[in-house]
Amino acid sequence: MTETQVSTRASRRNGRAVVLLSGGLDSAVTMAIARGAGLECFALSFRYGQRHAVELDSARAIAERFGAVEHAVADINLRLFGGSALTDDIDVPKGRSADEMAGSIPVTYVPARNIIFLSYALGLAEVKGCGSIYIGVNALDYSGYPDCRPAFIQAYAEMARLGTKTGVEGAPFAIETPLIDLTKAQIIQRGAALGVPFELTHSCYDPTETGEHCGQCDSCLLRKKGFHEANVTDPTRYRTL
Amino acid sequence: MTETQVSTRASRRNGRAVVLLSGGLDSAVTMAIARGAGLECFALSFRYGQRHAVELDSARAIAERFGAVEHAVADINLRLFGGSALTDDIDVPKGRSADEMAGSIPVTYVPARNIIFLSYALGLAEVKGCGSIYIGVNALDYSGYPDCRPAFIQAYAEMARLGTKTGVEGAPFAIETPLIDLTKAQIIQRGAALGVPFELTHSCYDPTETGEHCGQCDSCLLRKKGFHEANVTDPTRYRTL
Repeated sequence: MTETQVSTRASRRNGRAVVLLSGGLDSAVTMAIARGAGLECFALSFRYGQRHAVELDSARAIAERFGAVEHAVADINLRLFGGSALTDDIDVPKGRSADEMAGSIPVTYVPARNIIFLSYALGLAEVKGCGSIYIGVNALDYSGYPDCRPAFIQAYAEMARLGTKTGVEGAPFAIETPLIDLTKAQIIQRGAALGVPFELTHSCYDPTETGEHCGQCDSCLLRKKGFHEANVTDPTRYRTL
Repeated sequence: MTETQVSTRASRRNGRAVVLLSGGLDSAVTMAIARGAGLECFALSFRYGQRHAVELDSARAIAERFGAVEHAVADINLRLFGGSALTDDIDVPKGRSADEMAGSIPVTYVPARNIIFLSYALGLAEVKGCGSIYIGVNALDYSGYPDCRPAFIQAYAEMARLGTKTGVEGAPFAIETPLIDLTKAQIIQRGAALGVPFELTHSCYDPTETGEHCGQCDSCLLRKKGFHEANVTDPTRYRTL
């Protein structure tokens, strides 16, 4: 292989990213950041037995708006495991204060979810020649989730380096977490500056059938508080009680 | 929580394992080893766009023979990625010598496959209260696969410790690889001693429609050579040419 070929392959890798796109606010801002860095983006979403599919409609709209090269939706079966309010019949908690949310692992924790998501992203990155994987995890508002912390992300990247053809051949994948240290308000400000169409994003754990946010689950409460603190107009359609 | 409860939970974790069961010879021996250690086993297989489904019939038969508590089959979509002779339309190599197989990553490498398999196993282990995950990877005969090496397994276990509720709460998952240092002949001898019904296992990358082994792909050649070197009768139905 000539030097030119090597450098072409490297630049293609470095110029391409897989972006995990849930349809939520955080992943939309993550997508905007990756596109803002000039990367060709391969969006990846999952149909994983969520109790509501409106998230995937949001993901499709965001992928299209930001000109993703492709948007893959992987069917995966986390209901196989049960054990979480997001895939099982456990009640979603409502009306909790920030203090109540903090300090414990929430019932909305899905075992190994981000680990599974990242693993699909890794396979896709290897096949598509992407040098990085963008994931919108956040260690502040979601401090209860072990798979949103920097130490986990670092360990994941090391495992990926050792466990893939591309990694062992000397070109490890970067796991990019541009939101990890930001508050929800900072994420919203960053998204506003990058023109993220927040009205297309979906955060609610318990939406109405017409896709309105409940306004009371942890995710809605963090979203509302974020817009308020960011001093950005909140375009979300909350359910009117 | 009382001390009794803690110790009950710990012993249940330690007495239970998830076993990744492909239907191949190696995973069948792995299952026999886990059962031989007195563990309650939760078998886990995947329908991942293999070109042949006969593997899953083998997995079911092995799970039943060894009295697995449950046998889960997860539908996953590795065809989403393409890029491997096992899921795509690339020709499976035939008639290669051991030297030709060694030293390079084979076209049958599926990007991130073991990483994805282990991640599902991890989710299942967390939900079912299993303390360990058994996987029949082997670093000798499959030296070309980066995700079969001890350094990768160790990195995976560390990532799993940091990325799961159970792990961060102080009870990491053990990733058990009882075959990792064994030759195929040693694996077969071990299996023979544990009563593994080899005739139920399936190794071939390119079987006939009636489930006969082709006898010529890398996997068949390793299998044949293994039985020969182990001095164990080979019950495999190879295609008659």
